[in-house]
Amino acid sequence: MTGDQTEPTRTELEKLGEFGLIEKLTGDIKLVNKSSVLGVGDDAAVINPDQGLVLVTSDMLLEGIHFDLTYSPLKHLGYKAVAVNVSDIAAMNGVCQQITVNIGLSNRFSLEAVEELYQGIYQACATYNCDLVGGDTTSSKAGLSISVTALGTVHPDRLVQRSGAKEHDLICVSGDLGAAYMGLQVLEREKQVFMANQEMQPQLDAYQYIVGRQLKAEARTDIVQWLSESDIKPTAMIDVSDGLASDLLHISKQSNCGLRIYEEKIPVDPATKDAALEFKLSPTTVSLHGGEDYELLFTIDQKDHQLIESQPGISIIGHVTDKTQGCSLFTASEELLEIEAQGWKHF
Amino acid sequence: MTGDQTEPTRTELEKLGEFGLIEKLTGDIKLVNKSSVLGVGDDAAVINPDQGLVLVTSDMLLEGIHFDLTYSPLKHLGYKAVAVNVSDIAAMNGVCQQITVNIGLSNRFSLEAVEELYQGIYQACATYNCDLVGGDTTSSKAGLSISVTALGTVHPDRLVQRSGAKEHDLICVSGDLGAAYMGLQVLEREKQVFMANQEMQPQLDAYQYIVGRQLKAEARTDIVQWLSESDIKPTAMIDVSDGLASDLLHISKQSNCGLRIYEEKIPVDPATKDAALEFKLSPTTVSLHGGEDYELLFTIDQKDHQLIESQPGISIIGHVTDKTQGCSLFTASEELLEIEAQGWKHF
Repeated sequence: MTGDQTEPTRTELEKLGEFGLIEKLTGDIKLVNKSSVLGVGDDAAVINPDQGLVLVTSDMLLEGIHFDLTYSPLKHLGYKAVAVNVSDIAAMNGVCQQITVNIGLSNRFSLEAVEELYQGIYQACATYNCDLVGGDTTSSKAGLSISVTALGTVHPDRLVQRSGAKEHDLICVSGDLGAAYMGLQVLEREKQVFMANQEMQPQLDAYQYIVGRQLKAEARTDIVQWLSESDIKPTAMIDVSDGLASDLLHISKQSNCGLRIYEEKIPVDPATKDAALEFKLSPTTVSLHGGEDYELLFTIDQKDHQLIESQPGISIIGHVTDKTQGCSLFTASEELLEIEAQGWKHF
Repeated sequence: MTGDQTEPTRTELEKLGEFGLIEKLTGDIKLVNKSSVLGVGDDAAVINPDQGLVLVTSDMLLEGIHFDLTYSPLKHLGYKAVAVNVSDIAAMNGVCQQITVNIGLSNRFSLEAVEELYQGIYQACATYNCDLVGGDTTSSKAGLSISVTALGTVHPDRLVQRSGAKEHDLICVSGDLGAAYMGLQVLEREKQVFMANQEMQPQLDAYQYIVGRQLKAEARTDIVQWLSESDIKPTAMIDVSDGLASDLLHISKQSNCGLRIYEEKIPVDPATKDAALEFKLSPTTVSLHGGEDYELLFTIDQKDHQLIESQPGISIIGHVTDKTQGCSLFTASEELLEIEAQGWKHF
């Protein structure tokens, strides 16, 4: 569905061998961060953390579980594999500096396909200003596996964990929620149509925003920067990867607090609403449980209320309560519902 | 071939879900290194590097490529996945402090199987004194994928790269070579016998040493410690993962030098020799191209000759030459052969 119609050159990976492939993929790297002392090409990369703490996070994306190459262009996939890790560093209020990338490839991938994947990886490195400093490239018996580790830095005074939310804090979220999930529903539907009749071309124009949110994940490093410039330090923060409900429960559990959010305050894009209704889903359910939005969910002290309120693109969706009050959603029809996790369960 | 004959309890992973599984696998972690500020349980781990440089390396092990669960016990596999990364940190003359582990699991794995894998991971953490601080656990459509990232530290004055070898330096290697490869040959042969007739029990007693070298990889952190205590700083170092020949060529290329090694000086265990002859292989070929020994290959200045010579378990196998002389093996029959890489080529 996503491939070119013209048949491009195909160079078999076995012609290059592992070292040839690594040289081809990483030979042009120019390290941009001062902290990146030594990159690809030795037994390990060498990093000189300029100051403060080092953050490390790692995520694995597996074909057939996290992505479907029928509709995920390899370039977007490479970009996303980096972005989701940068997002985790951002969720600690840190800045990503280096990444390592491990790739397992079956022989159905050509050099050109792998280069497309790496184009996305390098584009993400450019966007987020981080260096690819190492990794591993191997063959695979079963499709494509991508495992990315991101290293970041944060000043000790700026570190934000999931555990710092306290009663009366405001709960904030960046951007809007549920779009990535609805994008996935549209892509899955069009795939079914295409599988049934390969003459049918996918109808995606009307769904550009939500499909883009699924395929082109972005880490909200701009929010981390704005928080720093505004001298606001969230009391707790997490990125919305599993879904708003699930991620709220993480904050509640680790901060040992209750919380209440308001249905009418949850930011949902009109395109997400339209698609949800078309699929006979509740937009609220989609925004609560959709996941993969990679927005930042954070709590702030009330003293920062005005600064946050005047900032476009950040919504205050509720507040932190005493633990005994549990986690609840105040609906548009003025009911109080308990929030339960229904995030991605791969098993 | 390796499993218990009694059928153990089987708990399905789907009963736990991702978060339940992570809690089960990582709930008992006690961080041991002062530099491990925050481990599993937030968006990223937090590390406070005590001093000097941070080393980072990452390796992926895929079922059907790097291991065969017919004969690799899960516990050994978990241990090995950590050890090979610790070995890369050791090859920079550094000390591993933290690891992250990403696992992709198909539903044929039970909780008990995954716990066995993690037993090996934790045993390696205990051996090498490093903390498991993060990672990702996901389902997989195709077997088991393990991606480990190791972080280490090294004082800037002690960092050793592949690029520092200079003419007249001595070439040294720890332990012995080729055993892991011959162990693999024996395991593969016994597997074929077992596949043909499942009544046949594998005959491994006679091959204990070489099979152990294949299944129970160890990183030579003891050598790094001894080098430090002896105040010897290698001029270049690499771990023998691809095979002596291939790894010598890495040093030659990156140090821009030639080198000569002597067949009679290459350390090969009698058990490896016996097995090689049984398989009608040349012990020298096996030691040159076998790979997966995870011994340390390093070059030292001549001034350290006596210290090295008197140290059991380290062999001086040759010396560094001018670049124009290339890389050669001086054989027992006094021929000079060019060294060529024939290491693992997965593609």
